[in-house]
Amino acid sequence: MDAAEFRRRGKEMVDFVADYLENIEHRRVYPDVEPGYLRSMIPSEAPLEPESYEDVLKDVDRVIMPGITHWQSPHFHAYFPSASSYPALLADMLCGGLGCIGFTWAASPACTELETVMLDWLGKMLQLPEDFLAGTKGQGGGVIQGTASEATLMALLAARCKAVKCVHESDPQRSEADIISKLIAYTSEEAHSSVERAGLIGGVGIRMVATDEHFSVRAETLEKMVAEDKAAGFIPFFFCATLGTTPSCAFDKITELGPLCNAENIWMHIDAAYAGSSFICPEFRPLLDGVEFADSFNFNPHKWLLVNFDCSAMWVKKRTDLIGAFKLDPVYLKYDNQESGMFRSLKLWFVFRMYGQSGLQAYIRKHVELAKVFETMVKKDKRFEICAEVVLGLVCFRLKGSDELNEALLKEMTHLGRIHLVPCKLRGRFVLRFAVCGRTTELRHVQEAWTHITELSSELLLKKRNEA
Amino acid sequence: MDAAEFRRRGKEMVDFVADYLENIEHRRVYPDVEPGYLRSMIPSEAPLEPESYEDVLKDVDRVIMPGITHWQSPHFHAYFPSASSYPALLADMLCGGLGCIGFTWAASPACTELETVMLDWLGKMLQLPEDFLAGTKGQGGGVIQGTASEATLMALLAARCKAVKCVHESDPQRSEADIISKLIAYTSEEAHSSVERAGLIGGVGIRMVATDEHFSVRAETLEKMVAEDKAAGFIPFFFCATLGTTPSCAFDKITELGPLCNAENIWMHIDAAYAGSSFICPEFRPLLDGVEFADSFNFNPHKWLLVNFDCSAMWVKKRTDLIGAFKLDPVYLKYDNQESGMFRSLKLWFVFRMYGQSGLQAYIRKHVELAKVFETMVKKDKRFEICAEVVLGLVCFRLKGSDELNEALLKEMTHLGRIHLVPCKLRGRFVLRFAVCGRTTELRHVQEAWTHITELSSELLLKKRNEA
Repeated sequence: MDAAEFRRRGKEMVDFVADYLENIEHRRVYPDVEPGYLRSMIPSEAPLEPESYEDVLKDVDRVIMPGITHWQSPHFHAYFPSASSYPALLADMLCGGLGCIGFTWAASPACTELETVMLDWLGKMLQLPEDFLAGTKGQGGGVIQGTASEATLMALLAARCKAVKCVHESDPQRSEADIISKLIAYTSEEAHSSVERAGLIGGVGIRMVATDEHFSVRAETLEKMVAEDKAAGFIPFFFCATLGTTPSCAFDKITELGPLCNAENIWMHIDAAYAGSSFICPEFRPLLDGVEFADSFNFNPHKWLLVNFDCSAMWVKKRTDLIGAFKLDPVYLKYDNQESGMFRSLKLWFVFRMYGQSGLQAYIRKHVELAKVFETMVKKDKRFEICAEVVLGLVCFRLKGSDELNEALLKEMTHLGRIHLVPCKLRGRFVLRFAVCGRTTELRHVQEAWTHITELSSELLLKKRNEA
Repeated sequence: MDAAEFRRRGKEMVDFVADYLENIEHRRVYPDVEPGYLRSMIPSEAPLEPESYEDVLKDVDRVIMPGITHWQSPHFHAYFPSASSYPALLADMLCGGLGCIGFTWAASPACTELETVMLDWLGKMLQLPEDFLAGTKGQGGGVIQGTASEATLMALLAARCKAVKCVHESDPQRSEADIISKLIAYTSEEAHSSVERAGLIGGVGIRMVATDEHFSVRAETLEKMVAEDKAAGFIPFFFCATLGTTPSCAFDKITELGPLCNAENIWMHIDAAYAGSSFICPEFRPLLDGVEFADSFNFNPHKWLLVNFDCSAMWVKKRTDLIGAFKLDPVYLKYDNQESGMFRSLKLWFVFRMYGQSGLQAYIRKHVELAKVFETMVKKDKRFEICAEVVLGLVCFRLKGSDELNEALLKEMTHLGRIHLVPCKLRGRFVLRFAVCGRTTELRHVQEAWTHITELSSELLLKKRNEA
């Protein structure tokens, strides 16, 4: 394929994408295929000779489209959103065209420099303390990671390195292996599984902290565990706080937890993967109060800030903590500085400028309002209950009754494929999660979804009554 | 920006990218900017209100382009290639438009299924033993990672988990921490720094193995180290072999090393990040002989197989080894199964089909031939010496004389920005690396590069003589 053909095919692909996104709501949101469906639809080996582009594109429709879960559909209410916007798509096309990777300054100066400045822009939008910004007199700075899981792992490893150094200074005879074997990390029982995995990778103990009635970790609980562990000869060194948990979007009380961690010399990392985007709105910024006590903070613009996957923003208060742990270039805090570093900051730049801070705030507010509308409808129907406080764009709810009943409801929904939700467990109960995800989700989609849910519920309850 | 504007701007961007790539050779390949150049060129905060797309695009030319190292230029001979092709760009546009992420089968069936099948296609192209493929009766399979560094880390962690389990079975009293503190990993002194970093992250000892006169690790050397370490109470558990080292594209002797590792119960991982792509050609496939002894194997199609960054292909012989280490979904061996998983397999599918195996082979061969041409020219000029065997697309050479002389030559080259090379150290000496990188690099570019190098060298030698 030469440049001339690329011009033609590229423009067709732009239309293909625009057509897809403009008509996405008419598609079944969850695909109707069985595991293993694809293998038999295509050859078992790569062709020896080139095939035509037409044939490839035909197979996109024949093989790929039937197996897509349409994350960008306004009927998609599962997980948390995966962001997408036209400015970000354009930036990605540019990024692909440039085809440069920025693992050091020299490898792509614009790439590394724009990243540092964009993380300062974003940090200011969030009103992060100046300590976390690079263009100030502080020792902090931001870096783009692929995912929140990567950021959590980096933070835990940096904390491990710092803790080992610290213990070693007061007790030079003690071996690194012995110190590591005594290190204990903490996180909420509601935290994402990637925190546990980071502990597993880092070879340190990890303890789950029980939450209060709002699914929030409180200082009192953590304090007790820390005291117990210290008494038993362990070394508490890391706490991963969650702002906006995956199951129910709950918030750990970091205004209480921060001072405790600081006093106990425990590294506090904040994972706000989903909720973080909302902190650009003054009315949601109080949810981040306490960040001044944190050593590192992370959230995913690729979830809720209109920046396509992947783009996870991480800030640290002391760059040297990371540099010590990873022997990295002092300016650009890459976990994987030899190979990583696409031009991901371009997406941020395009999106920030084309939406403006006001446009991004309006986008966040719209989603939160739609979630409130959904919550109100659920509350009006006495057959249902709300299972967690609705703070942002997620509503946890269930039919009053057994887990089996709710499982049956979700199964039928998934089978029909008109809307897509995933469940969670809260206090051991099976709960449905309704997340407002789509860039194009409007009031009518939320209303239609609720109508669909209540109709299915009525059928199910009637059937159950008839069976009884 | 609505769909209509995206259609217009997207088509303009396609032309922008095509124009860029068609005219790239007329640009200075290495930028003429100083560290920190960018911050003062743009505002210090994100705009409150939206800006126009025209303004953003103007700034791409004004702010970004002057700071780009043009990796896709035919004058770019630094590092190793970062692949790019029109079919891959089209696949990336589609991937961005779909905006789905495939961290589980249900999250995007087509995404996870195509990945497994594409890794089988690619595995067959490399003639990997059937053990490594998913669509067979074996226990193996492939997965796409972001980078070779990630693959190395995964392999080391899986090996660590297996080793701990194994020692624990024979000695149940021994603690995990104690076992880990005795584990020793090995890799070539010429290996990529990410191997050392993986050891650092995994908290295990790592020893660098000396190489022979071809910069290859030999079994004899490793065997001696393993015996010493065992005698000292350590537990050898992991060897990362390199096929195609970063400095000189050297190859560890895996036909010797594999049987040793198997006999010693040492996990052998093969990192063939750059060289791996060449194994699709029958004449280079012997370089992979011995892979049958490996537990895991990895290379980067995003380096040399026309698939845009990022796309690193990893295979394991026993899926359960990874699953045991990461508690992952048994089918899709994601290191980071909760968030990762863009539709990267689409790029492979588009590239494999649009080039065909024959087209990909021709592409590899062209690069190797151009490197041979460059080698021949270097050899004919008695002022220069070749510093390592030229096997694939990399030529290591230097002016006979001091390191200072060669450093001065490279500095002048970088300053002029007509071609871009980076150096390496071989046996302590400063060596220039000439890598054939560009998709559009032709004979004339290589000839021009050599003319430029010899002219600069003549000036430099003359100046030196005059100074003496």
